[in-house]
Amino acid sequence: MKALEYAKSKRDDYLAGYNELLRIPSVSTDVAYKDDLNRCAQWIVDEMTRIGFKECRTIPTDGHPVVYGEWLEAGDDKPVVLVYAHYDVQPVDPLDLWESPPFEPTVRDGKLYARGVVDDKAGVWVNLKAFESIFQTEGKLPINVKIFFEGEEEMGSPNVQPFIEANADLLKADVLALCDGGFSPDNPITAYTLRGLVSAEVKLTGPDHDLHSGMYGGAVHNPLHMAGHIINSFHDANGRIQIPGFYDKVQALEPAEQERMVESWEATSQFLLSRAGTENFWAEPMGSLPERLTALPTLDVNGVWGGYQGPGTKTVIPSEAYFKVTMRLVADQDPNEIAQQFKDYVLSFASDTIAVEVDVFGEAYAATLDVDGPYMEAQQQAYEATIGKRSVLVRGGGTVPIAGTFQKVLGLPVVMMGFGSGDNIHSPNEYLNLNHFDAAMEMAIRFYTNVGSVTQATS
Amino acid sequence: MKALEYAKSKRDDYLAGYNELLRIPSVSTDVAYKDDLNRCAQWIVDEMTRIGFKECRTIPTDGHPVVYGEWLEAGDDKPVVLVYAHYDVQPVDPLDLWESPPFEPTVRDGKLYARGVVDDKAGVWVNLKAFESIFQTEGKLPINVKIFFEGEEEMGSPNVQPFIEANADLLKADVLALCDGGFSPDNPITAYTLRGLVSAEVKLTGPDHDLHSGMYGGAVHNPLHMAGHIINSFHDANGRIQIPGFYDKVQALEPAEQERMVESWEATSQFLLSRAGTENFWAEPMGSLPERLTALPTLDVNGVWGGYQGPGTKTVIPSEAYFKVTMRLVADQDPNEIAQQFKDYVLSFASDTIAVEVDVFGEAYAATLDVDGPYMEAQQQAYEATIGKRSVLVRGGGTVPIAGTFQKVLGLPVVMMGFGSGDNIHSPNEYLNLNHFDAAMEMAIRFYTNVGSVTQATS
Repeated sequence: MKALEYAKSKRDDYLAGYNELLRIPSVSTDVAYKDDLNRCAQWIVDEMTRIGFKECRTIPTDGHPVVYGEWLEAGDDKPVVLVYAHYDVQPVDPLDLWESPPFEPTVRDGKLYARGVVDDKAGVWVNLKAFESIFQTEGKLPINVKIFFEGEEEMGSPNVQPFIEANADLLKADVLALCDGGFSPDNPITAYTLRGLVSAEVKLTGPDHDLHSGMYGGAVHNPLHMAGHIINSFHDANGRIQIPGFYDKVQALEPAEQERMVESWEATSQFLLSRAGTENFWAEPMGSLPERLTALPTLDVNGVWGGYQGPGTKTVIPSEAYFKVTMRLVADQDPNEIAQQFKDYVLSFASDTIAVEVDVFGEAYAATLDVDGPYMEAQQQAYEATIGKRSVLVRGGGTVPIAGTFQKVLGLPVVMMGFGSGDNIHSPNEYLNLNHFDAAMEMAIRFYTNVGSVTQATS
Repeated sequence: MKALEYAKSKRDDYLAGYNELLRIPSVSTDVAYKDDLNRCAQWIVDEMTRIGFKECRTIPTDGHPVVYGEWLEAGDDKPVVLVYAHYDVQPVDPLDLWESPPFEPTVRDGKLYARGVVDDKAGVWVNLKAFESIFQTEGKLPINVKIFFEGEEEMGSPNVQPFIEANADLLKADVLALCDGGFSPDNPITAYTLRGLVSAEVKLTGPDHDLHSGMYGGAVHNPLHMAGHIINSFHDANGRIQIPGFYDKVQALEPAEQERMVESWEATSQFLLSRAGTENFWAEPMGSLPERLTALPTLDVNGVWGGYQGPGTKTVIPSEAYFKVTMRLVADQDPNEIAQQFKDYVLSFASDTIAVEVDVFGEAYAATLDVDGPYMEAQQQAYEATIGKRSVLVRGGGTVPIAGTFQKVLGLPVVMMGFGSGDNIHSPNEYLNLNHFDAAMEMAIRFYTNVGSVTQATS
């Protein structure tokens, strides 16, 4: 294929352009970066326009803008593929653990280090460069394409979900290529389940100002003690979550599904376990490792803070304590219901000594993606041609908030794709394996080419 | 008395000099301020030399220097008074709650706002200016004086305690004026008990790097959960501390002491309760408010941190969690024993999923001070002459780490003095009531003058 040769010949240019994109600090959860998100969206629009897409534009939302562009000249008999990725990235802290600055892309030992280099600017960039390679060699694309990149994935897509609901016509398509995930050429996997998400922040207030622990210790209720009390109460000794009603809509896996989970676990466990940073696991009475990681819901405290954090001692009873929580949900758990259960539960700890406030600020449904049909086959054939084997279908434990929404609102089959081979997503020193960049480009070019042969377009 | 008139005439100069002292950010617990501690100590030495003290010098320790100076020409029949205060101050965070910068002394509504303006630079400054006023009007002091100011009180005096043990001859005296406390002309009190102190920092380590909560949630043990578990375990629902052996050496109060506590509570409770920042108290089953605040030991978590603390959500299982603890001890509790009990207890939570480290880094014995004898009488007569009434003897809940050491090593009677009338010590917006500054000066001048009439010096 000419496009493949072209992509290889342009490798240095493509990586140089990628570095430009990676330098824009598009941290969506921190308002300090709002202008950078706008700048990032516009930069992508300019790039898409240059490549040959039409109607390219940023579209404002109540949060960060979405990026849209289209090319619909492949003919009515060709499918319309809605291509999704996200241009926002995770926060970078703890910054001091980065060996090179997170927004100064740096190559060490064949790895490109930068925040977002895998999650998910790889999804943005590999798609654009694949289409550019096809445009440059064929003068056209084999399919109709709608590009839809969002800037709020790492904050739970609060404004993008209503955007999809309000713009179902604009986004109408035959299939969604959901490009947010890893790419493992040695051990290719495709996640066919995603967990849902509820995230929350809890604020506890005791005395109305910080107090001297010598003068008031023993009589004034310390909000850090209450934080410990609530956090401790979330799980029992087996790791079972104690929020009333939490497990009501968790479904036991069908025997066939149970079997598929165990089989697919063999394909993924080595990779996953080697990166767990520990050899000992927790909550074993709740189920097997694959079950706990993909088929059961979770509650994790993601951050806690309050009082004195500096060197040495400060003999203080702080006025306030805070913690953040995310819960991963599995099929049939409704994020709105779970959010309410969490809120009710945490508020039940309020007393005349400690005030409790709960903000729930991110929600996503769990999703089950297409495992059969021509689009999945197009992807599997792309794998076979690129790396010599099909991908293994596995249950995924992570969340792509938008996946459930696309399924519910647009009724689309969803194919999961990932183009970033690397590690440390959501952690310091996120990196991309540069020696897999060509294979990722090839996967994308082959996938869209294969989809061009799917003739039973429904639109 | 001429010295009193002189002090009043010099009020503006004395306050201008005080502002210079307050501008030096002598935060002992933060190594970033190490040079400022040295500068502060030298500044005081220069001032003492100018005033007329001899042998003035900073003396290095393994931590921050002590300040020493003496004037021993009052005659052998006059007592030697060892004057103690501390020139270090508490940290200032949360900085954003200060209405004016903590090291730019600012007057608002008759109050002088600055970190340390009460605790305890007032102890340093009022003493020096009282002696200066006497020197300037009498040409000599009525007593022999040894000045001993330390720079580590707010970090538990780790190096000053061994210094006292190693320099018992230098510090030999007939009485210790322990000048670290508040001054309430309307409601004068003298604390005759102090609680001891153990402080600790705990580090919990789970996975060796931060993990994605979608990929590893439900199977990797989250150190923030363990922090909550341990913190929750410190107290039962009544507020009773659960560390094995913790209460073994707590003594029930004698009936007479119980009565004195209840009486003295009437003198202090209104002031204390009006500043508690809450109207509702905790741990009521443990005892009455005065008992919990002064006669029972406490454990307070002073700070907790770990994971993501920024805006929005970060779906992370952090690698580490930290918390800081201080425990207040009462008579017969040995800080070394309690430190070991705490360490053993917290380490017992270690498992193959979470590693636990405990640093214990501050220790002080509880102390019971002189309530009878000529020196206390000299103080009470100073109160009577200055503000028309004697002070009420009360149990104190705070800690002056050095008090127990002075008692144990030097065998001195200890008189507690406080020269700072104000509030918000250890909190943002610490302030001194300027309209009580003259009375504080008078108290000091009268006290040392009265001590000059105590002829039964033992040295």
